[in-house]
Amino acid sequence: MITIGIDIGGSSIKAALTDAGHGILKRTRRPTMAEFSKEQTFEQIHECIEELLPHAGSAVEGIGVGVPGAIDLKRGIVFHPPNLPAWQEVPLAEILTTRWNIPVRLENDANCAALGEAHFGAGKHHQNFLGLTLGTGVGAGIIIENRIYHGERGFAGEFGHITIQYDGPACNCGNHGCIEAYVGIRYLMKEALPQLLMDEQSSLHTRAVANPEGLVPRDLSEAANSGDETATNILRTAGERIGVAIASAANLLDITTFILGGGVAAAGAPLFQGMLESARSRVLKVHRESLLIIPAELGNDAGMLGASSLFL
Amino acid sequence: MITIGIDIGGSSIKAALTDAGHGILKRTRRPTMAEFSKEQTFEQIHECIEELLPHAGSAVEGIGVGVPGAIDLKRGIVFHPPNLPAWQEVPLAEILTTRWNIPVRLENDANCAALGEAHFGAGKHHQNFLGLTLGTGVGAGIIIENRIYHGERGFAGEFGHITIQYDGPACNCGNHGCIEAYVGIRYLMKEALPQLLMDEQSSLHTRAVANPEGLVPRDLSEAANSGDETATNILRTAGERIGVAIASAANLLDITTFILGGGVAAAGAPLFQGMLESARSRVLKVHRESLLIIPAELGNDAGMLGASSLFL
Repeated sequence: MITIGIDIGGSSIKAALTDAGHGILKRTRRPTMAEFSKEQTFEQIHECIEELLPHAGSAVEGIGVGVPGAIDLKRGIVFHPPNLPAWQEVPLAEILTTRWNIPVRLENDANCAALGEAHFGAGKHHQNFLGLTLGTGVGAGIIIENRIYHGERGFAGEFGHITIQYDGPACNCGNHGCIEAYVGIRYLMKEALPQLLMDEQSSLHTRAVANPEGLVPRDLSEAANSGDETATNILRTAGERIGVAIASAANLLDITTFILGGGVAAAGAPLFQGMLESARSRVLKVHRESLLIIPAELGNDAGMLGASSLFL
Repeated sequence: MITIGIDIGGSSIKAALTDAGHGILKRTRRPTMAEFSKEQTFEQIHECIEELLPHAGSAVEGIGVGVPGAIDLKRGIVFHPPNLPAWQEVPLAEILTTRWNIPVRLENDANCAALGEAHFGAGKHHQNFLGLTLGTGVGAGIIIENRIYHGERGFAGEFGHITIQYDGPACNCGNHGCIEAYVGIRYLMKEALPQLLMDEQSSLHTRAVANPEGLVPRDLSEAANSGDETATNILRTAGERIGVAIASAANLLDITTFILGGGVAAAGAPLFQGMLESARSRVLKVHRESLLIIPAELGNDAGMLGASSLFL
């Protein structure tokens, strides 16, 4: 089956023509131009499709689009995507079908990333898993029997807002002690900073003093890789906390495979190790053997590939 | 559709002949005799069926059985039910079909209770909900689109082992800070005791001194109803903690209806109030309006009625 998958991010639109059996046939990308009008963004999307279509040997059977934010799946409408300020309520499916006369399906970007891993990546051999994206936010796509689980109104998968400590730090959402309030990039770096400022031995100490805002999770993982104890501990603790939420989700859902992507997931060994040990020690005994926490395989292509899988 | 539903508890077996459209046609019960041989318990089950069959105007199309503990649903085998020490691995479906020549389905008791509420009780008008049982343990049946969600291996619904405080009290399961380690009956009373011993004004103080083991959640709720401040606070705090886990589950699953049964749920107003306020303040904004926490309606009949619904 030949389809087009499009991933609309805050800065760029990634698109690919894919064949279900063979992966990507042709890919392209355009700037999102989110700072301009929404029509300008639509035009960028149209250009992607125009560029890909001639490469499809046979008919393109569908266009799948991954979008940040809330979506009315049935009506194909996008509501207030956080990274696309010009979009209020956009009937994106209709806009694309009218122009291209091809069926269009929309899906939330975290769900697309999980679906991409399900069809083309680390989830290929797992019917049930949670695809976690650890970045600015902490989201999940829940895959049950190879399909996205949407919940009542399409909002399922807010893994980042599982509470791990009821009197913990305030989260943007209004709750306290959400896992996102510990390991979302901004929270993670904010908690790391005083530790790096205190530890004059840390390889990141000088940078923490000079340009505290400039530090990112990758700096922590590089420092940890070179033996920096403070950076290692910060990442390990972050991992242990994610492990708490993983155990809760596994116990509730009887799903024991977790596939991790996103910037914080790239933070490497100490984070993974902390997460594995904590999740394994906390999960119910019946799940201990089957618990599997593995890295995502598709990187930035996951969303686009997941979008292209929406017709499978 | 005429079916028989059987709920095998640690002390008694409850059974009913039911008509999907009209509820219970005839009911009966027997002692489980768990302290004797398993054959003796089988005999009690057979007696229940024998007593009910003559009252079915037409053919009985199935026998559904709710059993505590782990079950192989496909093969109809019960594994090590905690309250039936003589049972190791019992092919209960085969035992009953062989004798009665009627199809048999088994199901976990917490799932049966939720299914009972779905078909005959508080869940009748809700396609998606979590049926929580707050008792010695804290369990849940997850109902998605009117059906039980089983998870990968039938272990889904371990709501009691959602962590609400990662450095909280030790839970029987080996984890720390599970909601069950706060509000499971034994934990709840253990935490309540020192407060009742400290507060000489409390109406339960004398009993707490004389017979600390004799206090149960109902005593707390009765004291709270007569204006006892300490008892009210204990129940309120318990409710607030359950609210934390409810918010986590609602955020992860996008399911916003929770139906509460079991001994602790009967503890009344302060518990419900604490739970509602805490869950509502913690859940994502998008769920705040739709969040619904209501009492179960079927009491001890839920499991038996759910078992009778396994063929619907």
